[in-house]
Amino acid sequence: MSSAPSVSSSITVRLQVRARPTAISELTTAIESAGGIVTALDITRSEHERIGVDVTCATRGEDHAAAIVATLRELTGVDVERVSDRTFLLHLGGKLSIESKVPLRNRDDLSMAYTPGVARVCEAIAARPEDARNLTIKRNTIAVVTDGTAVLGLGDIGPLAALPVMEGKAVLFKRFAGIDAFPIALDTTDVNRIVDTVVAIAPVFAGINLEDISAPRCFEVERRLRERLDIPVFHDDQHGTAIVALAALTNALKVVEKRMEDVRIVMSGAGAAGTAVLKLLLAAGARDVVVCDIAGVVHGDRPGLDPSLVWTAGATNPRRVTGSLRDALVGADVFIGLSAPDILTGDDIATMAPGSIVFAMANPRPEVDPDDAAEHAAIVGTGRSDFANQINNVLAFPGVFRGLLDAQSHRVTLELLLAAAQALADVVTPDELNATYIIPSVFNPEVTTRVAAAVEQAARAGAAPTTTQRDDHAVTALR
Amino acid sequence: MSSAPSVSSSITVRLQVRARPTAISELTTAIESAGGIVTALDITRSEHERIGVDVTCATRGEDHAAAIVATLRELTGVDVERVSDRTFLLHLGGKLSIESKVPLRNRDDLSMAYTPGVARVCEAIAARPEDARNLTIKRNTIAVVTDGTAVLGLGDIGPLAALPVMEGKAVLFKRFAGIDAFPIALDTTDVNRIVDTVVAIAPVFAGINLEDISAPRCFEVERRLRERLDIPVFHDDQHGTAIVALAALTNALKVVEKRMEDVRIVMSGAGAAGTAVLKLLLAAGARDVVVCDIAGVVHGDRPGLDPSLVWTAGATNPRRVTGSLRDALVGADVFIGLSAPDILTGDDIATMAPGSIVFAMANPRPEVDPDDAAEHAAIVGTGRSDFANQINNVLAFPGVFRGLLDAQSHRVTLELLLAAAQALADVVTPDELNATYIIPSVFNPEVTTRVAAAVEQAARAGAAPTTTQRDDHAVTALR
Repeated sequence: MSSAPSVSSSITVRLQVRARPTAISELTTAIESAGGIVTALDITRSEHERIGVDVTCATRGEDHAAAIVATLRELTGVDVERVSDRTFLLHLGGKLSIESKVPLRNRDDLSMAYTPGVARVCEAIAARPEDARNLTIKRNTIAVVTDGTAVLGLGDIGPLAALPVMEGKAVLFKRFAGIDAFPIALDTTDVNRIVDTVVAIAPVFAGINLEDISAPRCFEVERRLRERLDIPVFHDDQHGTAIVALAALTNALKVVEKRMEDVRIVMSGAGAAGTAVLKLLLAAGARDVVVCDIAGVVHGDRPGLDPSLVWTAGATNPRRVTGSLRDALVGADVFIGLSAPDILTGDDIATMAPGSIVFAMANPRPEVDPDDAAEHAAIVGTGRSDFANQINNVLAFPGVFRGLLDAQSHRVTLELLLAAAQALADVVTPDELNATYIIPSVFNPEVTTRVAAAVEQAARAGAAPTTTQRDDHAVTALR
Repeated sequence: MSSAPSVSSSITVRLQVRARPTAISELTTAIESAGGIVTALDITRSEHERIGVDVTCATRGEDHAAAIVATLRELTGVDVERVSDRTFLLHLGGKLSIESKVPLRNRDDLSMAYTPGVARVCEAIAARPEDARNLTIKRNTIAVVTDGTAVLGLGDIGPLAALPVMEGKAVLFKRFAGIDAFPIALDTTDVNRIVDTVVAIAPVFAGINLEDISAPRCFEVERRLRERLDIPVFHDDQHGTAIVALAALTNALKVVEKRMEDVRIVMSGAGAAGTAVLKLLLAAGARDVVVCDIAGVVHGDRPGLDPSLVWTAGATNPRRVTGSLRDALVGADVFIGLSAPDILTGDDIATMAPGSIVFAMANPRPEVDPDDAAEHAAIVGTGRSDFANQINNVLAFPGVFRGLLDAQSHRVTLELLLAAAQALADVVTPDELNATYIIPSVFNPEVTTRVAAAVEQAARAGAAPTTTQRDDHAVTALR
């Protein structure tokens, strides 16, 4: 699992170079010999004796980028004028804008979008509050809510530092599902204040996507918000991960010709994501699941279990397995890791049953080196984009919320999560399905459409029959 | 002050009409005889015997629109198929969208805007929180916050019904100042919860615009938010109104050749807007102000004054006037109304000093009929767009926030409000200035630019010298 240069660590170097026939090839050779990958090169200006060159290259990270720049500085006849970081350039000023959908060319426009005309729209909503779903941005707007306590692999970095991730999430919601998502980064980590704040700002939103809130507070926040709000609350780290993992496992089992009801599943990780995956696997028919955490196998006789683990012990482990993760793995058909890097080796995977499935989803470093795992397992999936079978939440959350909004849904149900997973699995056709393609690409346009349709149907089936779309307000306003 | 048909109450009527030479003229004649104004007419389809027609007309409101439709229904050979309300059509789905500023075409794009590249940006902000102003939407984003208790003239209609106004405000922020504004409509009217909520969601915002929160709670909300936040808090109903009123008065005094220090000013209204206007007038040099509320002139001997009125009594009324608004008005140079409709007549205005100035800003119905007032006053201004001298907050708030954001300001000061008013007054050149043009049009592009420049300068002058713009992060990220 060697680290390759990545576009996400690209730099653009502005150089002044003495004009001579070999000037450009000396530059690119120097960058390549330093391990960088040149992705763009522009001559920005030319004089008699000098040329200006902007060269962009992928690096393995900041130290590597600095080494490449140092190499360039040592070249004869080359001056480094400026080094810029493409990822930082992209983030200048943030990644979102709020735009007007209505023209404001003159007083007439103003009189409809603002006073006095807007007053009639206000009065209509005051008379029928549910019309806010049609006459305001509530129709298509959700909040991406975090307190910045469990951001990516970075941990508790606070609300300001979490913002680029929340903005990125909003960008994904727009790109993949046409949803208007706004980042809410909370300056509090207190569960009561988080819940009270989200409840207070809920009127403008048709859904809440919780994000990167550390466990176990995230469970409490989600549960209490669901009690108090009439809009769906979805914790992507839990439910998004669970949907994609179930979809991947559904297809992987087809490849190895095993059934969910029959396989032995070993999970590593009993946190927010692990527990959500477990619940969805059980709802999908899994019968023999053994969950491990840092102290080994979770079972009813283990002392000191917290309430969540007591539940886990009761719902899993029918063969009363004890011992370590390694012990549990012997003879297992499926390993699902949502825990920590490098806790297993290829030799451990070799002890699993023939035709084994390994989802090592710790990010950025999986539970086991995926190349090593692939020597023994039939199917390997990770959370990384540079290996086959990326189990990526982006496959789920845009479609889930698209379906929830289209159904004007008030809540998230287990049936709805199962429907999303099944729809996602079904995007891969029988002709396409194989050990290196159990899950579609995030850029497959079918993904969001089909997940959204399944979620919308499940939401409508589970909703009271009064929930009907009203697009006709403008037409019926005059009765 | 007759009510004319308004585009803000336009309807579009879809008709099937028997084809004959006079078909169209019969339609337009019928609409005009019913008092409507035809603004558009389209033949949408044509068959041998019938044509389809969409006719749009301005009306005086819903009852008038219904009467016009009834008139059309009575025409021979005309079938009304559908009536739609242009203002409601404009509002379908809301007036704002959240857009991505970055492309997401492929995995490389994804790796910079989201994981793994975004992690480096998060880490940079965690190390230097102030960089969030450059690397996130905090740079250009403000919240438009309401609890829906004092919306336009509609009163306490709640957060959902207030949303169209807040969205409209955000549209104005974008249109006139390029600011990304997001509507926060709070599901609480409790001062503690409002303050706690806004503090909790503040990280993503560079400014808070309070809007349509009823007095006296709005004072407390503003004061406590200013104490707890390091971003500027501006209550538009107070400070926006005060800036525009002061600018208008500054220019009006030039026209009548009087000085702020010399004039007798009578104000009607001691609520949020009235108090803010009063404070700014005093800061601008006014010496003889008499404030009236529903109980008459505010003076120190009046029993039962609340704390705000005690302050008002102490800061105003040097001649110790008592009695009613009418009594106070006799011999006054300036009347400023921010109170209730139709409380004065033209005869009352006639008792004022020669060259009197009347700003009757109650909306939508002013304190005195502006046509009647104009028979006796030298200058009349209102809050309405259908009379000269519209004293409209749109002239202030976009430029004020543009200046605050450009200066990365942490607070709103009295000096800054005065600077904004002076800059706004100065947009009207000496050549342009006359009794019907004391304040520029909202569509004058100079307005926002000049108010913003003045506010930015005042904010920088009042700020600690460490506040410097850092646009160079992307360049200096690699050191």
